[in-house]
Amino acid sequence: MEEVTSEGEAEAIEWAPLAWSLLSRVRQQSPLIQCITNFVSMDLVANVLLSAGASPAMIHSLEELPDFTPNVDALCLNVGTLSSDWLPAMKAAACLAGQFGKPWILDPVAAGATAFRLKACLELVDLKPTVIRGNGSEIIALSNASMGTAKGVDSSHNSMDAVDAAKSLALLSGSVVAVTGAVDVITDGNRVIGAANGVPLLQKITASGCSVSALIAAFVAVDPKLAFEATASALSVFGVAAEMGMEMAKGPALLRVHLIDCLYNIDETSVLSRSKITSIK
Amino acid sequence: MEEVTSEGEAEAIEWAPLAWSLLSRVRQQSPLIQCITNFVSMDLVANVLLSAGASPAMIHSLEELPDFTPNVDALCLNVGTLSSDWLPAMKAAACLAGQFGKPWILDPVAAGATAFRLKACLELVDLKPTVIRGNGSEIIALSNASMGTAKGVDSSHNSMDAVDAAKSLALLSGSVVAVTGAVDVITDGNRVIGAANGVPLLQKITASGCSVSALIAAFVAVDPKLAFEATASALSVFGVAAEMGMEMAKGPALLRVHLIDCLYNIDETSVLSRSKITSIK
Amino acid sequence: MEEVTSEGEAEAIEWAPLAWSLLSRVRQQSPLIQCITNFVSMDLVANVLLSAGASPAMIHSLEELPDFTPNVDALCLNVGTLSSDWLPAMKAAACLAGQFGKPWILDPVAAGATAFRLKACLELVDLKPTVIRGNGSEIIALSNASMGTAKGVDSSHNSMDAVDAAKSLALLSGSVVAVTGAVDVITDGNRVIGAANGVPLLQKITASGCSVSALIAAFVAVDPKLAFEATASALSVFGVAAEMGMEMAKGPALLRVHLIDCLYNIDETSVLSRSKITSIK
Repeated sequence: MEEVTSEGEAEAIEWAPLAWSLLSRVRQQSPLIQCITNFVSMDLVANVLLSAGASPAMIHSLEELPDFTPNVDALCLNVGTLSSDWLPAMKAAACLAGQFGKPWILDPVAAGATAFRLKACLELVDLKPTVIRGNGSEIIALSNASMGTAKGVDSSHNSMDAVDAAKSLALLSGSVVAVTGAVDVITDGNRVIGAANGVPLLQKITASGCSVSALIAAFVAVDPKLAFEATASALSVFGVAAEMGMEMAKGPALLRVHLIDCLYNIDETSVLSRSKITSIK
Repeated sequence: MEEVTSEGEAEAIEWAPLAWSLLSRVRQQSPLIQCITNFVSMDLVANVLLSAGASPAMIHSLEELPDFTPNVDALCLNVGTLSSDWLPAMKAAACLAGQFGKPWILDPVAAGATAFRLKACLELVDLKPTVIRGNGSEIIALSNASMGTAKGVDSSHNSMDAVDAAKSLALLSGSVVAVTGAVDVITDGNRVIGAANGVPLLQKITASGCSVSALIAAFVAVDPKLAFEATASALSVFGVAAEMGMEMAKGPALLRVHLIDCLYNIDETSVLSRSKITSIK
Repeated sequence: MEEVTSEGEAEAIEWAPLAWSLLSRVRQQSPLIQCITNFVSMDLVANVLLSAGASPAMIHSLEELPDFTPNVDALCLNVGTLSSDWLPAMKAAACLAGQFGKPWILDPVAAGATAFRLKACLELVDLKPTVIRGNGSEIIALSNASMGTAKGVDSSHNSMDAVDAAKSLALLSGSVVAVTGAVDVITDGNRVIGAANGVPLLQKITASGCSVSALIAAFVAVDPKLAFEATASALSVFGVAAEMGMEMAKGPALLRVHLIDCLYNIDETSVLSRSKITSIK
């Protein structure tokens, strides 16, 4: 037990400065993040990206993708309000991102809720996302390629239940896989780490998961070769901002406000002292 | 007059505990509420449902409905940003809800504003919603099956002007009909009650009406046989949360924040002492 | 230099009362503003219009326009999340507005980002908007009818760089052209004025530009013959509300809340003492 603790602490010393460094680069470079995301999340996703220093662009029409996607720094696809008329644009954008070497993130909202949605998500996984970020039920559904037991968009599994599924999915897809929950689990199939920041009340804010997926896109955008590290860093920084926001909030609406403002104002000291990223055995 | 007052008080003793009991059941059971709602309202509708303890799912694509709608606890249809490509999914979802015995709520936003919209709303009424919730002008337009005098989405009638129209519509459709305004009127065609909670500034928050329709869906979901009572309870609880939020707000944006947080935090004492539901002669 | 200052001051005495007078008329008349706007902005646009006293209606379906658009007081078109299925409705609404003498505003979001978008915006310009409101890069792209250097939806030019482009575009189109930035530039091709209210943090709030375009629609609606003056007034009043909101905010999310509430509560003294509209040589 002592070893685990000391290793955790040793790693914290390495991870927290990396998280701060990546956030700083997002603020300096202001990466352009194309989001084809669900209607519910657009406002929060855009505001979270702006507060972190990135430049969001919600452009989803098939006609515009060939001009636009090759010039972005990263792409975030989110299937929350999927329909047959949006899916072709998602696939086309993913293909363009692949072709032009742009990192892209898949958020497979409610992946196991319907056959149509599961099939769409699996087709998107086949297009090799850089990162897949979902809750436990979503990652298990994708990993098993089968409809799940989840109720709607909320998870019926906690993130630690999905570690094996996440590893399998990562190995199968070549993607970094992140499972968010009380502890966020990040794996590339071999390495498995946990980011333990955040607050339970985030679950009462719609699109908080969608927003952190977009934030991952911004962090990966500034250093695509470090996708694994950037994913963990984005999750931790978002969680730290939520913890700081929670100190000023008694409910989900005020937490949402303060989360955004904390993400905008967060400084090195806060990231270094609060970020909790450690390996998971 | 004395009789009315004392009856009102006697009823308050019965209604407020019922409202509290239904809210408690929403928090415990976390009913899954499918919303096919307008683009403007999605964020607020989802956050209001989450803060009340329900689980929102904005799923609207025709391909997904056969898998999804049979498993929800209630459905909320809102025609605010209606278009010909969304209407078939609304009808299909309503049919599935009917087939599988799931309660569903219709919010006929701006029902009388255009012929297309009026026709669509009347077709949805024919599919027998459990509850119809609108403002005075919307309910009058539906009841008369004719385009109204309302300007845009805001009502040109107060709720008490629409009592007869609401009763006719309820008898015709078999639905519980709720007309929101300074006093919210709820009728099943025979019984008529009023919920007198809320604040005028709610009218300056976009989608506040859409949100209360979704909240009605959550309350009806936990006890579909009590649709009449659940509708009144949801309207009263939402109004109490608005009153409590108003104590901390000087404008509509902060009211919106505090309304959500008050709905999340509201306790038995507040509901019992503030809820005002009485019969209307 | 002294002359400029004194002329500035002299004009301030004329402009600020006009701005207040137009805001008062918006509050009294509550003009109905139809918005066909992007998905990201719908919530904020509606809430900004409501807080200013106007009545927003997000109605975009082709089937409804012939019934609806002739009865509105102004129309606001915003191409932020443009797609080929929304464009025909935008054009039809613009044509109806023209036919029925209703003022309409074009917000050419990211006009130069793709060929499809540029073509669509130029076609809309041909339909003679009353006002075009964009950032520097958007106005330059429209004026040159060529794809720009802007990255995504954010401007790579400041507003003063776009004065000549704005004048050309105004002369070519017959529209009032507004370029927002640190100083908002307004021109009808001959006159050029600047509105110097606002705060830099507005750029970190998604859809703040879209919202001010809608607010311009509300101001123009109450006096369409004064489109030039109303545009400057709306920009200044929005900027004053932002300045007042900034006094209570340390980040973009709380600024957004206070901006709306300040717009709702702003009084004559604040407008008269803070509004900064002056001519630009």
